[in-house]
Amino acid sequence: MSLKLFELVGTDEARPFSPFCWRTRMALAHKGLSAESIPWRFTEKHAIAPHRSEKVPVLLDGETAVVDSWTIANYLEDNYPDRPSLFGGEGGRAMGRMMNWWGDVTVVGGMFPLIVADIPGHLHPVDAVYFRTSREARLGKPLEETVAGREKSVEGFRRSLDPMRLTLRTQPYLGGDAPNYADYIVFGGFQWARAISPFKLLAENDPVYAWREKLLDAFDGMARKSPGYPV
Amino acid sequence: MSLKLFELVGTDEARPFSPFCWRTRMALAHKGLSAESIPWRFTEKHAIAPHRSEKVPVLLDGETAVVDSWTIANYLEDNYPDRPSLFGGEGGRAMGRMMNWWGDVTVVGGMFPLIVADIPGHLHPVDAVYFRTSREARLGKPLEETVAGREKSVEGFRRSLDPMRLTLRTQPYLGGDAPNYADYIVFGGFQWARAISPFKLLAENDPVYAWREKLLDAFDGMARKSPGYPV
Repeated sequence: MSLKLFELVGTDEARPFSPFCWRTRMALAHKGLSAESIPWRFTEKHAIAPHRSEKVPVLLDGETAVVDSWTIANYLEDNYPDRPSLFGGEGGRAMGRMMNWWGDVTVVGGMFPLIVADIPGHLHPVDAVYFRTSREARLGKPLEETVAGREKSVEGFRRSLDPMRLTLRTQPYLGGDAPNYADYIVFGGFQWARAISPFKLLAENDPVYAWREKLLDAFDGMARKSPGYPV
Repeated sequence: MSLKLFELVGTDEARPFSPFCWRTRMALAHKGLSAESIPWRFTEKHAIAPHRSEKVPVLLDGETAVVDSWTIANYLEDNYPDRPSLFGGEGGRAMGRMMNWWGDVTVVGGMFPLIVADIPGHLHPVDAVYFRTSREARLGKPLEETVAGREKSVEGFRRSLDPMRLTLRTQPYLGGDAPNYADYIVFGGFQWARAISPFKLLAENDPVYAWREKLLDAFDGMARKSPGYPV
């Protein structure tokens, strides 16, 4: 068994920051698997082109390349079935698909306009130019203008987490008594933000904050040990 | 086995319209169970008080009263384990808790300001007064003012369904290849709207529209046979 994971980094090779790569990192840890990290930067398309991908994460399992965090989660579940389950059955896998989209749209999509301007400072110049140009084209305005007023606009983001917050009233994790892939989907977003932005996404008295603390401590503090700002 | 279900109705006893009762109705059908319907109206608190509830659905299973649609779904899953599963395993049950809150907050909560003014017309005068008074106190404005401009504000509601819409790209139901309780959570909201409002919540070219059509046809068209407006 030889696993390798292409992970997005910037100037600091030891500071992976993609929300999607973090989903995979947590999933690997959940399965008790370790993967050698291959640092990858935005403009290194050539490095993953042979694996038919333009984005990370890309997981290499021996000769097999698996692309996209959701596909990787399913691959791990199917190919390492004797290890702890990521989905807790087929119902969890099916609902996990929607949790994944909720994580993409509401969590990652909601964080993006709050923290995006903090990203270029963590990138090498060539990547910073690529990032700024491509994202500003998508946003139709400068990154700095996008995050302006975030002390106020964060309130809408926090409110958008209500379905999760309400769930945590009666169970410690989205996965139930213990975390599963549903938790890693959301946590990946927070770990992305923590790596590249000092902005406080959550209030300290928020149940989601307490939940994040527990995931930072999971797997011997794997996520907390990774470089990041205080949250 | 003798099941009875208190269901919210208005002037038409045969037109149950609570989103939460519809979740239970669909869950019962999924389990292959039938329940005698006990029509219940907003102001008939006395009828369910002995079952320690102020709201419906209330399910009576012999001597046992079960209150709240989520609790009922879990009760059915645990007490009728040999019937088709509502959650598809413990992971689905755990994630279902969040799907249920998403259904409450985003789906039912999103529909409410679009259709609420259409409800009193379906109620007996005493219930209509109760409904208008309690809801206008909550909203801080008249029902009619709440729904004003809904042709425009429906766009935000439609957009809020994106995580579901994107999920339906790769699987026919939130539950996977076949519907499960995750689908009934959302469908309950649509069946509520259909029963009491002529307002078009979905565009016909929306994948969510096609999904709703299939659920209207499920269980021999149980939901479609229930009185409602064209959708």
